[in-house]
Amino acid sequence: MLTRIDHIGIACFDLDKTVEFYRATYGFEVFHSEVNEEQGVREAMLKINETSDGGASYLQLLEPTREDSAVGKWLAKNGEGVHHIAFGTADVDGDAEAIRDKGVRVLYEEPRIGSMGSRITFLHPKDCHGVLTELVTSATAPGAEH
Amino acid sequence: MLTRIDHIGIACFDLDKTVEFYRATYGFEVFHSEVNEEQGVREAMLKINETSDGGASYLQLLEPTREDSAVGKWLAKNGEGVHHIAFGTADVDGDAEAIRDKGVRVLYEEPRIGSMGSRITFLHPKDCHGVLTELVTSATAPGAEH
Repeated sequence: MLTRIDHIGIACFDLDKTVEFYRATYGFEVFHSEVNEEQGVREAMLKINETSDGGASYLQLLEPTREDSAVGKWLAKNGEGVHHIAFGTADVDGDAEAIRDKGVRVLYEEPRIGSMGSRITFLHPKDCHGVLTELVTSATAPGAEH
Repeated sequence: MLTRIDHIGIACFDLDKTVEFYRATYGFEVFHSEVNEEQGVREAMLKINETSDGGASYLQLLEPTREDSAVGKWLAKNGEGVHHIAFGTADVDGDAEAIRDKGVRVLYEEPRIGSMGSRITFLHPKDCHGVLTELVTSATAPGAEH
């Protein structure tokens, strides 16, 4: 069951400049940053608010580390902007299976490791009215023990 | 001060079909629907979670009521997908002025009426790393008395 907007993923050409834009314009600070070599991205998570399911909502700023990564190809085609949206769930494995059974294409056979040690998968945007949609179970809260 | 992700605005060709996709796939229900003639949209708000500032986060599904509306033109160019993101604040007027003073173009001279009687304005996507960004003060909570 999806219980929160976990994050909005925003693709950018220059992570440092984009982080500085969000800090200078709105006062948002970097909560966490990492490089995900598998996804081919360098990223910064800006925590915006906490959520009623015990989790939080973030902006996820993404700079590709290589042109042939998914985000690199997307940026080359679309320019900077919203790349995907992510819903939080206590059970990404179960929800992904249930959604696959409804005929929506799930992009990974099994969930993979995302930001901050979370488990994530993606749904095909063509099956989601044009929206690349991520499902995420946090490594910490909520429901990580499930 | 921006204290929450208020909503993600998603443009679609057929509001009823898109509402049904979100209901059937994720169990999200319509919290509110309305037509905004000034914006030229028919919309449905799906409440996803409540937020730590006393507000909530929604998906806002938007179908244009006329082709020459902003959303209608955007859809013709881009197809379905994420149209904008919105941050909640207790003081959209003050925040818009402060952000304008930083050199970011604010699209309305004064905030206008948005979903559920809120006051809203937009920031130019070219000044926001490609993201059309809305600022919104809810008519009810939080901080509506400010």
